[in-house]
Amino acid sequence: MNKKADQDPAAGTPTAPYKVIGSRPMAQDAVDKARGRADCATNVKLPGMLHGRILRSPHAHARVLSMDTSRAEALPGVLAAATWKDLWTADELASPEKVSPDRKHFRDTYLASDKVLYCGHPVAAVAATDPWLAEEALKLIEVRYEVLRPILDPHLAAGEASPFLHEEAGANVLESPPGMGGNVTGRTERIKGDPEKGFAEADIVIEREFRVPTVHQGYLEPQVAVASWTSDRSVKLWSATQGAFYVRRDAAELLRLAVAKVKVIPMEPGGAFGGRNNSFLEPVAALLARKAGRPVRMIMTRAEVFEATCPSSGCFMRLKMGATREGKITAAAAYLLFESGAYPSMTWASRAADCMLAPYDIPNGRIDAYDVLVNKPKSGAYRAPSATQVTFAYESVIDEISGLIGMDPMAFRLKNAAREGTLRIGGAAYPRVGFVETMQAAMETEHYKTPFEGPFRGRGVACGWWPNNGLPSTCSMGVNPDGSVNLTMGSVDLGSNARTAVAMQTAEALSIPLGDVHVHVGDTDTIGYTATSGGSRTTFSTGIAAIEAARELLRRMGERAALIWKVDSSTVSHAEGVFTTSTDPAKRLTFKAVAAKVLTTGSPLFVTASVDPKGVGSAMATHIVDLEVDPETGKVTILRYTAIQDVGKAIHPVHIEGQIHGAVGQGIGRALSEGYQFDDQGKLLNRTFLDYRMPTMADLPLIETVLVEVPNPGHPYGVRGVAEPPVTPPPAAIAIALHRALGIRMNELPMSPEAILRKMGIIQ
Amino acid sequence: MNKKADQDPAAGTPTAPYKVIGSRPMAQDAVDKARGRADCATNVKLPGMLHGRILRSPHAHARVLSMDTSRAEALPGVLAAATWKDLWTADELASPEKVSPDRKHFRDTYLASDKVLYCGHPVAAVAATDPWLAEEALKLIEVRYEVLRPILDPHLAAGEASPFLHEEAGANVLESPPGMGGNVTGRTERIKGDPEKGFAEADIVIEREFRVPTVHQGYLEPQVAVASWTSDRSVKLWSATQGAFYVRRDAAELLRLAVAKVKVIPMEPGGAFGGRNNSFLEPVAALLARKAGRPVRMIMTRAEVFEATCPSSGCFMRLKMGATREGKITAAAAYLLFESGAYPSMTWASRAADCMLAPYDIPNGRIDAYDVLVNKPKSGAYRAPSATQVTFAYESVIDEISGLIGMDPMAFRLKNAAREGTLRIGGAAYPRVGFVETMQAAMETEHYKTPFEGPFRGRGVACGWWPNNGLPSTCSMGVNPDGSVNLTMGSVDLGSNARTAVAMQTAEALSIPLGDVHVHVGDTDTIGYTATSGGSRTTFSTGIAAIEAARELLRRMGERAALIWKVDSSTVSHAEGVFTTSTDPAKRLTFKAVAAKVLTTGSPLFVTASVDPKGVGSAMATHIVDLEVDPETGKVTILRYTAIQDVGKAIHPVHIEGQIHGAVGQGIGRALSEGYQFDDQGKLLNRTFLDYRMPTMADLPLIETVLVEVPNPGHPYGVRGVAEPPVTPPPAAIAIALHRALGIRMNELPMSPEAILRKMGIIQ
Repeated sequence: MNKKADQDPAAGTPTAPYKVIGSRPMAQDAVDKARGRADCATNVKLPGMLHGRILRSPHAHARVLSMDTSRAEALPGVLAAATWKDLWTADELASPEKVSPDRKHFRDTYLASDKVLYCGHPVAAVAATDPWLAEEALKLIEVRYEVLRPILDPHLAAGEASPFLHEEAGANVLESPPGMGGNVTGRTERIKGDPEKGFAEADIVIEREFRVPTVHQGYLEPQVAVASWTSDRSVKLWSATQGAFYVRRDAAELLRLAVAKVKVIPMEPGGAFGGRNNSFLEPVAALLARKAGRPVRMIMTRAEVFEATCPSSGCFMRLKMGATREGKITAAAAYLLFESGAYPSMTWASRAADCMLAPYDIPNGRIDAYDVLVNKPKSGAYRAPSATQVTFAYESVIDEISGLIGMDPMAFRLKNAAREGTLRIGGAAYPRVGFVETMQAAMETEHYKTPFEGPFRGRGVACGWWPNNGLPSTCSMGVNPDGSVNLTMGSVDLGSNARTAVAMQTAEALSIPLGDVHVHVGDTDTIGYTATSGGSRTTFSTGIAAIEAARELLRRMGERAALIWKVDSSTVSHAEGVFTTSTDPAKRLTFKAVAAKVLTTGSPLFVTASVDPKGVGSAMATHIVDLEVDPETGKVTILRYTAIQDVGKAIHPVHIEGQIHGAVGQGIGRALSEGYQFDDQGKLLNRTFLDYRMPTMADLPLIETVLVEVPNPGHPYGVRGVAEPPVTPPPAAIAIALHRALGIRMNELPMSPEAILRKMGIIQ
Repeated sequence: MNKKADQDPAAGTPTAPYKVIGSRPMAQDAVDKARGRADCATNVKLPGMLHGRILRSPHAHARVLSMDTSRAEALPGVLAAATWKDLWTADELASPEKVSPDRKHFRDTYLASDKVLYCGHPVAAVAATDPWLAEEALKLIEVRYEVLRPILDPHLAAGEASPFLHEEAGANVLESPPGMGGNVTGRTERIKGDPEKGFAEADIVIEREFRVPTVHQGYLEPQVAVASWTSDRSVKLWSATQGAFYVRRDAAELLRLAVAKVKVIPMEPGGAFGGRNNSFLEPVAALLARKAGRPVRMIMTRAEVFEATCPSSGCFMRLKMGATREGKITAAAAYLLFESGAYPSMTWASRAADCMLAPYDIPNGRIDAYDVLVNKPKSGAYRAPSATQVTFAYESVIDEISGLIGMDPMAFRLKNAAREGTLRIGGAAYPRVGFVETMQAAMETEHYKTPFEGPFRGRGVACGWWPNNGLPSTCSMGVNPDGSVNLTMGSVDLGSNARTAVAMQTAEALSIPLGDVHVHVGDTDTIGYTATSGGSRTTFSTGIAAIEAARELLRRMGERAALIWKVDSSTVSHAEGVFTTSTDPAKRLTFKAVAAKVLTTGSPLFVTASVDPKGVGSAMATHIVDLEVDPETGKVTILRYTAIQDVGKAIHPVHIEGQIHGAVGQGIGRALSEGYQFDDQGKLLNRTFLDYRMPTMADLPLIETVLVEVPNPGHPYGVRGVAEPPVTPPPAAIAIALHRALGIRMNELPMSPEAILRKMGIIQ
């Protein structure tokens, strides 16, 4: 599709066949976002709007014996209170067995019924005329608990002897694996070749264990939702969400409404990173608004965001690897225990299995991955979910084993790199991928070639991989009499410049200037179903939808040109922004000229395209980090950082670089400082940005980037998702660098000063 | 298409072939509108929003010598001021001849440059932190005028000797008709047969003159607009408009933006009746917002609404008619002088010519209609614009001439009624129309058959006609997994229940329950071009767009059923909400069943249809009124009123009855009490609802309705526009009733107590 680009790995200059793609225009919405003038849910103000607050469990694990909201409701200015009973019908309350465990779990996530399962679990909600009054009202709600022992360690939780978080669990989830109990709710088993035979063929076999704690996405804007009902029992929800259609689906189910009766208006979110795929407040705000007969707005505090949204899955990983002296991996086996938090999930262990050792050609492999319940908030997606965890494990082991056989780790990686046709462990064969190219590009950087030495200094290199998502997207497109084009997409722009990426593909497809394309994010009423803006899918999937809509628009405009010329439309073609007819080479009509005549030659032209593209291109990142450790304090200073990545085709190189910068920052945070800290009662100790330490600009070096362009054959312009691959290598790269600097192998995150000093034996 | 309905004129019961059409469900949005909870522009509150106000000319005709806004701008809290210069480029200001007269007129409509042309003409605008401060700031704007004599009478204005309102007029409009001057800006000439010969064949010829003053649409909600810019120089406009795409077009031109950079969000308008086709505030609010760097809201006072929006065209009409003793009209000739107000228009005289004598078969006819400038606000559309005026004239003459030849007026009308194939004066042949049926239905009413006599009492019967509009409409439609359907239309719902009318047609076309269809009004970004909600076109045109989208959705769902069954899609058909395949009669899938599988069988289904339907069905109304006059005061009391109307096919009979009730109320207002009163300087004297007397519920009788259904062959379900025909007969019917009651022929509106007493010779 884009051979030229294939041959031209230089980033940032529009390659020959493209006019718009590869250029670096200003984003349509950048300044408003930077200045806080974007349309945020917090700014929604409706007449008579109330303020909702949620009462949360102080216990990580307890039975709820009773709830009484009557005193709160009696407080003047309090207009509504809601509990789990508002999510159940009278019939269901009378016969609770009619509600399936799945459905009960789903409802309990929003408002707990018989049990609370983590500190911060929502128990009840109130709406009042001002937020402080609502806060006061929470204190008047009486809840009696029978406190139970929290189950916090995934090993203990998975054990046969562990008490179950969900008493009904055994009834609805998988048969417990041998030696495991009912808290194990998901199992993913992948096998390739003959692992036993592979290990037997190895000259060296090592097995290592790794632990990664829960971390939070750390988006700037807390969760916020506004709900307003109309008189026909339909509801409007303003939501800072990644996936408006997911919020709609969940709200419709919880509120027992036809899907068409729920309108979700996605507002500009202040960061997301996977943390806005789930709704927390929207259905509760809707319940309160329905009861009060007035609109309700709810905003979380930062502590609530930490305690009671969906942070990443903490995990335990064991990885065994065998290799020959010549540096060929013969076998690998992984045992992965991923926390699903308070409610069952089948996702995070499965994603971990997908990503484990994915960039490598492993002839014999086995992956056993389990989702396990613990008394922590329900796990959610966080930028390349599960991938950063397993990358930390597999790249650490790759580095160690290559060291043990005395081989350069990059040579070892290249020797074992997956290529087009390589079969993944338990998965399909790769199409065209750029793993080797990315590794080679890393080795060609000035950074890699420049020696880095000195006491307490080390360089680490690690590769990471992310499969990227496809999933459905819809775009609509209308052309105006002046030739400008309105494009509406169902994808939310998370601040990742999705509008610009889609506009650029549209302008390219239509051969018109980028300034003539205006992109809008639709609400769930006005655009067709579109999956969440997650899995780095928007530029890919929504881009394809936009390109298809553009092609349909050109086809229809060609029909109009044919009408104007009174020729058969099959004789009309379009190239470079000009319509021509094979019947008369002198006849030419520009895009603008045809646009001007649309309304005088027929109906308005307004087209749509819905796609569910299958040609997703996975992508690799290779990172190089130079660091120095203060041997007295254990503090790590990152001195230099270079991120190399196969981006397929860079639609907007600057925006991709921005994605990489942000991802590296987050990866460094996970590596060095971030992590949920619970006390033994399951109480989260670090619930503010003071205690939960994310890196700031002062903690980060200038991050150099190299964009490798190996076009994805599944996209017309070769696009691969770019946002998630670069968050996967940093912990591994930093752990490897720490090994070079200190001779230690860190196997737990974060690699905090304290943890480093402990590993060095300086403290205990 | 709908023969059954054709045979079943009984209104309100769903006729056999329909499941939804003809039923009387509750409107989706009725309660919110009634309770003031609908989304109104007045409720839009944005962070940092300013309040704009407009300085208006106190003179009806003056040259503007200078403007100085500097003192206003210096007032603390005033953040922006705007004058006409903000609509002109520096280049245009230096070389004003580069701006065509049309473009200058267009801009001057929003902010006057060198001349003001009516009292209330906008001169300058300010935005301040509160509306009272903005009001104060207006007083600090210094404008020097050279006051000119206002030209208020259309006869004087049209005369050769009249000074021109627009000095440049002669240069850009038509060559003045003989005896007329440059204030005549539009001319419509229609001719059929040989009028001279026709008059010669007549046994009796009469010629009468009529005068109708300007009236206002009288919508409840004043004009309101909110403007907010984004950093990429695109602007969002919240507007209480009938035609969001018109506001967008005009704002884009005035602000010199690509059309795609203007987003118009139509809000629920508080009444419209044609008065919201034009924008007044939106571009000015945008100018102020751009200068201030903050959002701006503008709301008119009621006095501004009366003085400076677009009321109806006042007119002078002369109608000559000849008929034989046997009651056959042989010829008619009309001279129509319609005020276009301060700026040229080609519309109102032309529409008057369309409607003049339209329901009758006139073998020889001539219509000369002229648009003429006067120093009054620019004329605009008001429900059946120009039709009510000419109906007053032609029905009065029909009644008088039938009386003069001693024939029953209804027999006379029937004898001369236009039928399918009749050629209009200067127009095309009628398709299937229901004029005769409507007249016959009127004569069959209990009202018509019941004698009505007594001193100062009279009954009047009059017919009226309106062509209705087609014009482009766009709908999009998506199906949800639960089988509910979202439909977005570009048509604004004016409180006329357009949502319900479109939802009902959609439900009928899809064979699903009405409750499964949820209709939304799109903004200009998210739906394709759609003309204004005017000319009674929405149920017709947007209905057809919805039906076409529904058919496309069914076709696509049929393809999915074929995929599920693994059969060829050509074997799949749909009827009565069930998909079947000819390959196996046992296979059946309901609409809901296929909907549930859409996302697992392919891309989301989201379809659109844009139409510009040509098969518009014109419609006739016949009204019967019984009234009584108080001979001492001249006060008219309406005792009984029946409105009979051909509605094509009644989608929702109750809503049509509501349209008829409202229209009759407005028609009675025009007949008896409404009318702009200017002093000799062109100052509007009645600028409040106290002085400008619209009828209230206390002034109106119960209005009986009879819906005649003669399906329009140009619509799949036979729809004709219904909102405007019923506003046309009331003045004529009441004038005729007054003749029966008092023996006088009123030829001027309103027929106020004072006018009646004067005509009776009781006062002078």
